[in-house]
Amino acid sequence: MSHYNRLAGQSVDRICALSDGVFAVAMTLLVLDLHAPAAASVHGERDLLAALWLLAPRLLVYMLSFLTLGIFWLGQQTQLNFVARSDRQFSWIHLAFLFAVTLMPFSTALMAEYLAFRAALVLYWLNIVALGGLLFASWWYLERAKLLKPDLPEGAAAAVCRRIVYAQALYAVGAALCVVSTLLSLFVIVLLQLNYALAPRLGPLARV
Amino acid sequence: MSHYNRLAGQSVDRICALSDGVFAVAMTLLVLDLHAPAAASVHGERDLLAALWLLAPRLLVYMLSFLTLGIFWLGQQTQLNFVARSDRQFSWIHLAFLFAVTLMPFSTALMAEYLAFRAALVLYWLNIVALGGLLFASWWYLERAKLLKPDLPEGAAAAVCRRIVYAQALYAVGAALCVVSTLLSLFVIVLLQLNYALAPRLGPLARV
Amino acid sequence: MSHYNRLAGQSVDRICALSDGVFAVAMTLLVLDLHAPAAASVHGERDLLAALWLLAPRLLVYMLSFLTLGIFWLGQQTQLNFVARSDRQFSWIHLAFLFAVTLMPFSTALMAEYLAFRAALVLYWLNIVALGGLLFASWWYLERAKLLKPDLPEGAAAAVCRRIVYAQALYAVGAALCVVSTLLSLFVIVLLQLNYALAPRLGPLARV
Amino acid sequence: MSHYNRLAGQSVDRICALSDGVFAVAMTLLVLDLHAPAAASVHGERDLLAALWLLAPRLLVYMLSFLTLGIFWLGQQTQLNFVARSDRQFSWIHLAFLFAVTLMPFSTALMAEYLAFRAALVLYWLNIVALGGLLFASWWYLERAKLLKPDLPEGAAAAVCRRIVYAQALYAVGAALCVVSTLLSLFVIVLLQLNYALAPRLGPLARV
Repeated sequence: MSHYNRLAGQSVDRICALSDGVFAVAMTLLVLDLHAPAAASVHGERDLLAALWLLAPRLLVYMLSFLTLGIFWLGQQTQLNFVARSDRQFSWIHLAFLFAVTLMPFSTALMAEYLAFRAALVLYWLNIVALGGLLFASWWYLERAKLLKPDLPEGAAAAVCRRIVYAQALYAVGAALCVVSTLLSLFVIVLLQLNYALAPRLGPLARV
Repeated sequence: MSHYNRLAGQSVDRICALSDGVFAVAMTLLVLDLHAPAAASVHGERDLLAALWLLAPRLLVYMLSFLTLGIFWLGQQTQLNFVARSDRQFSWIHLAFLFAVTLMPFSTALMAEYLAFRAALVLYWLNIVALGGLLFASWWYLERAKLLKPDLPEGAAAAVCRRIVYAQALYAVGAALCVVSTLLSLFVIVLLQLNYALAPRLGPLARV
Repeated sequence: MSHYNRLAGQSVDRICALSDGVFAVAMTLLVLDLHAPAAASVHGERDLLAALWLLAPRLLVYMLSFLTLGIFWLGQQTQLNFVARSDRQFSWIHLAFLFAVTLMPFSTALMAEYLAFRAALVLYWLNIVALGGLLFASWWYLERAKLLKPDLPEGAAAAVCRRIVYAQALYAVGAALCVVSTLLSLFVIVLLQLNYALAPRLGPLARV
Repeated sequence: MSHYNRLAGQSVDRICALSDGVFAVAMTLLVLDLHAPAAASVHGERDLLAALWLLAPRLLVYMLSFLTLGIFWLGQQTQLNFVARSDRQFSWIHLAFLFAVTLMPFSTALMAEYLAFRAALVLYWLNIVALGGLLFASWWYLERAKLLKPDLPEGAAAAVCRRIVYAQALYAVGAALCVVSTLLSLFVIVLLQLNYALAPRLGPLARV
């Protein structure tokens, strides 16, 4: 590797700051898809309530995406807490991860517009796969390049890997259900997200 | 709780950074609702002033929302200053809080468009309730999970709770006035916000 | 002051982080006003160059606003470097300052659309007055509430005040020239901004 | 230099924070150019896939711009890691650099719309030149004003300069190829970007 490449990308703090910025913007941009109903078609309270009701599916998709971004923000934070130092390869893995984050508002807008279409659901799922796959690559690289803190809690490395692999397997099953029905598929993905966000202690799921 | 969940979400700094990002974007996005008047309808200085005058109500609603976000940004900052460490439940409470923050530009745009509609005002108020409720849940969880700094100033815990409960009670009264008139209701909410921002020493209000 | 108000808004770091976020978003939102020319009207390289040429005034106004935001970002940073601790009044002065920052993309879009209109120029100037006035209020409050670091370089306090007063006086003169011509007025303001950004050593101006 | 100018712009941390914010917003705004296909023209899965396929070139241009921003973010980070302290001249060089960053979404939208036009490609290249030139100016100023950390690794200064000069020379060759074909030119620029992002060890390229 050339000299410059050995010097580049050593600041973990800067990766954290850029990540928080990208997540913050992506989380807030999602809502740009929610527009106040056009005034022309609203003549009374009843019309406004009806128009807002039509926004409900969009709001749900938006919540789902916020949940997804929250899950992966926490996942990335957990990894970065264990990192002692960074290098340029590691920086690029996280830049690729952030690229997948910036695609989320687009995947979300697509699914909000085409709730019943398999293509929209599969693209949304591929976005989740990219996020999970890059976090996995990040962890794999951290272990291989010995960038982790020496005082890692015992079993932490295995727990991080297991979490990503199990979650992605469950998402894949959820996405595969779109052969039956995209709404069923979406419903299962939402349940999985809520499981990871709320972490109820429901027997088997509590261990994945 | 599974092993991974015990490791996740331990960084208070990351919650602060993500929050500052989300607040910054939400505060700035509010202004996207203010558009320069269309050039086609403006033929002289007088037309431009008239067109700008029509924007005044929108600007006032925007100021109100900025005030609201400022109040809750300060409220969250005050709590986080007292936090010794974080865990994943606490992170999720704050992610939910940030979700309510990202909805603010939408609630604001809705109210700016439908100033005389009760539905718009009630939704705006519900957004404030969500922000207050989640800050309350955050404080309740901090105390219960013993995540607070040991050197908390005496009476601070009670002061934080009291502030949220009193403020929300006053907002609820303000919102309830929309049965009489939405503009009266909005006016009372603005006065309450200004009271919390400017903190004049007006006898009884100074103590809430 | 009630107990809660004494506890709130003590983190200078959070004010810095929120400010950097708001400035970053405002600086980048300015460019949203620059749109790629519509494809329908472009049939060759020559058409594209002509269409881009029409964007030049907009680009200049955008640069001017970026310069303005840069000047005030530096001004705020210089003050905050001297701050030992914060309180809630100080936080609210800076929230008001950030409110003026978020209005900049609107003032800019207005001036880009109505370059020859006095109303647009006066509004733009009022935005600059608000930014300068709030920085002045911030410094005044810092001195009065004894929030400054004890090891302030000698003469720093006077230098900060003088800079704001002189700059605002010059901006006011520049804006007053719009009685003669808005373009002349704009030209003088641009020269003033460049003086503050580039800081050439031009005799008298170097001392203001 | 006047007294105030000696006090201004001393915080390297604030430059980092503002930069991370601007990069984060610019990276995420790029995607605003990707719109979900209009529902009116989509009547089935096949239509949706066809409409998404039409978005592919836009997505590629977006990836290219993300890559560009990533490369320059890393470049700036590498420099700032070596900086001991800042002054106002240095702050303004970085504000100018951030200005070039905020132009990237516009250059990108222009190229996505006019893939076959030399004017769009040349503007895009000029944006890259501005980014590289300002990083070079920043390094030159850091050395001249003795703002670098004393414990700089040997050869680091030369490595930073060499990287910028070689990269810009290769970009210029890539851009010059637009005399032959804009697509060829774009293809070469993409290859160069990938080389800098992936840093494969390909003999001669590994050393530039």
